[in-house]
Amino acid sequence: MGNIKDKVAIIGMGCTKFGELWDKSCGDMIVEASYEAYEDAGVDPKDIQAAWVGTFLSGGAGTCIANPLNLDFIPVTRVENACASSADALRNACFAIACGMYDLALVLGFEKTKDCGFTGLPEPSYLHPIFDAGFTAPGCFALAATRYFLKYGLSPEEGKATLAKIAVKNHHNGSFSPKAHFQREVTLEQVMNAPVIAWPLGLFDCCPTTDGAAAAILTRADLAKNYRDDYVQVKGLGLSVGPALGNVRTDYDYTHWPETEFAGKQAYEQVGISDPRREISLANVHDCFTITELVNYESLGFSPSGQAKDDVDAGTFALGGELPVNTDGGLKSFGHPIGASGLRMMYEVYKQLQGKAGPRQLKDPKLGLAHTLGGTPGAFTCSVVILGQRD
Amino acid sequence: MGNIKDKVAIIGMGCTKFGELWDKSCGDMIVEASYEAYEDAGVDPKDIQAAWVGTFLSGGAGTCIANPLNLDFIPVTRVENACASSADALRNACFAIACGMYDLALVLGFEKTKDCGFTGLPEPSYLHPIFDAGFTAPGCFALAATRYFLKYGLSPEEGKATLAKIAVKNHHNGSFSPKAHFQREVTLEQVMNAPVIAWPLGLFDCCPTTDGAAAAILTRADLAKNYRDDYVQVKGLGLSVGPALGNVRTDYDYTHWPETEFAGKQAYEQVGISDPRREISLANVHDCFTITELVNYESLGFSPSGQAKDDVDAGTFALGGELPVNTDGGLKSFGHPIGASGLRMMYEVYKQLQGKAGPRQLKDPKLGLAHTLGGTPGAFTCSVVILGQRD
Repeated sequence: MGNIKDKVAIIGMGCTKFGELWDKSCGDMIVEASYEAYEDAGVDPKDIQAAWVGTFLSGGAGTCIANPLNLDFIPVTRVENACASSADALRNACFAIACGMYDLALVLGFEKTKDCGFTGLPEPSYLHPIFDAGFTAPGCFALAATRYFLKYGLSPEEGKATLAKIAVKNHHNGSFSPKAHFQREVTLEQVMNAPVIAWPLGLFDCCPTTDGAAAAILTRADLAKNYRDDYVQVKGLGLSVGPALGNVRTDYDYTHWPETEFAGKQAYEQVGISDPRREISLANVHDCFTITELVNYESLGFSPSGQAKDDVDAGTFALGGELPVNTDGGLKSFGHPIGASGLRMMYEVYKQLQGKAGPRQLKDPKLGLAHTLGGTPGAFTCSVVILGQRD
Repeated sequence: MGNIKDKVAIIGMGCTKFGELWDKSCGDMIVEASYEAYEDAGVDPKDIQAAWVGTFLSGGAGTCIANPLNLDFIPVTRVENACASSADALRNACFAIACGMYDLALVLGFEKTKDCGFTGLPEPSYLHPIFDAGFTAPGCFALAATRYFLKYGLSPEEGKATLAKIAVKNHHNGSFSPKAHFQREVTLEQVMNAPVIAWPLGLFDCCPTTDGAAAAILTRADLAKNYRDDYVQVKGLGLSVGPALGNVRTDYDYTHWPETEFAGKQAYEQVGISDPRREISLANVHDCFTITELVNYESLGFSPSGQAKDDVDAGTFALGGELPVNTDGGLKSFGHPIGASGLRMMYEVYKQLQGKAGPRQLKDPKLGLAHTLGGTPGAFTCSVVILGQRD
């Protein structure tokens, strides 16, 4: 496997306010995110040569953005890769820029999950009948939590408190994010005593159902300085997809996710990172549930196996900690419009690398990671994108 | 816009028998097409570094092929771009190979349209309400036909006979294709007198509803000779998406499709083709309806505007003609499993360039074109891929 290190730059990004956007159509959100990105990059929309869109269920084919953006017969690819849709859309756009096919590309992710566009998981007609049993996302991730507690000897109370601390951290970070779905703190007590959704996951262990869109403008790194001085470079692109659709693989360890591990390793190798905990300045990782973030700490190599609890207790991943994670609030607080989440994470990393993250701003971050995860354990789609300050 | 000319090679392809495959699951078809491609390329499935899948509605995320093929946590991207899904999947895979990220990739397209997976066009929830009127594919393309007849002064009988000749040609070609859905000739009389679906389109003007899968193995051109001597090079990749979702654009000429024209021009420019009719050895073009093929002749520059009828009458596009089109029978006779059609067309071009097309074999073809088109006029997704013999 090769790399595209330092060949592709992000010169503009945009992100809508996330939330229950009852008064906005998909087209409204697409236009809002794209025009913020155009303006941020200082590009004329007419100069965009090709586009990629990531959406799970809210749009079909490239036309779903060509229409509201009135893109003029340029190439537009729709990538659907569950919750990693827009992260993978960006990955493919990077390849197209890196190989020299296009000089200027738009990548957009969006999803309407409230008033239209989301009718639950798609009918799994492509599954073998033995896998065709129903499951819910909370139920599926709850099993990872109970398994994790058992394997590492956490009592139910210890386990639940560890997860709750992640929710408290992410809500704290989200309180500094004007575009977050929820901009309020929660207390440990509130999280611990919230109604149970699927034990041990309570209401505040689960991310919300959110509408939103995010966008990026890409160009070749050697052209980026023509647009702005503080462009951001795409350093590493990892993707790993698990084959165990139906959640019944007997050799899969549900407390450590190889999809996350392999996507991370691909990206680390491309960038030359041997100690991610020390070399990465910040990370936005997929936290559809608090247990998801906990397991991802370990699968990404931020914590040794079974020791993420100690790091959570020590505040390692807090805004002022050794490796701040989900600095904008994460899925938990910023929200999770499925197709938009990958680019939303990169939006935060991009702003942090530019020193423009407002009250959340970290001190001179050099490298930031965005990790998105879709599907179910054993059949996850995991993307890891590493962005860095220009050399 | 740049190009990837001569950077990417196809070293193996596979294609299932197309038809009403009631006894096969999506997984069965995926395995069958992929293993033919693996064997054709002489590669070990374990050496595949990344994969792309194109499907319209029959599968979600990369897992839909990672599961049946037991791909081992490698990157898998799902591309959905209507009927051009697998053609665009190949385009994105080409970028990833061309930029040096991967050395060996699998591209697969599949669709189940009979017993599962296809429930009609998806609910267009992303449309503006004023566009949300129902339409059918035959009704939509019938309007292009009546408009074409009016604009170029064809009487209803002349028009219908011109379209019927295309059906007769494609069924004739399909009679030589062991994997085609229909392998039988039809007469001009049969086509002209068939029940009307949407006037002027009768039953034999419409492609069938088909199950099937097709696959390709890609590598860098400089590595291809390690696998086989008669590898095929990817010469040009065009894609154009129209913005006029909802079919109500007043400045759109429904008898000439800019999506087809621009996708063709992008590819021609990359290859250095100035006279496609003379420089291309064969073309497989999208013929969901006979009128689609007729308009595509002109939009691809094979016939001057309004003169495709004369070329049809002269046999220009027949197997023994100046520029054979749909040599394997096209969608009309080979069938149209939506996500598989782009790669199925390339499968024919690949076999022709290798001299392995059996009774359909043309004399020493050098360059072949595959054109796929999805959606509705004004909002088409059009892909043009040009393949060539190794230099």
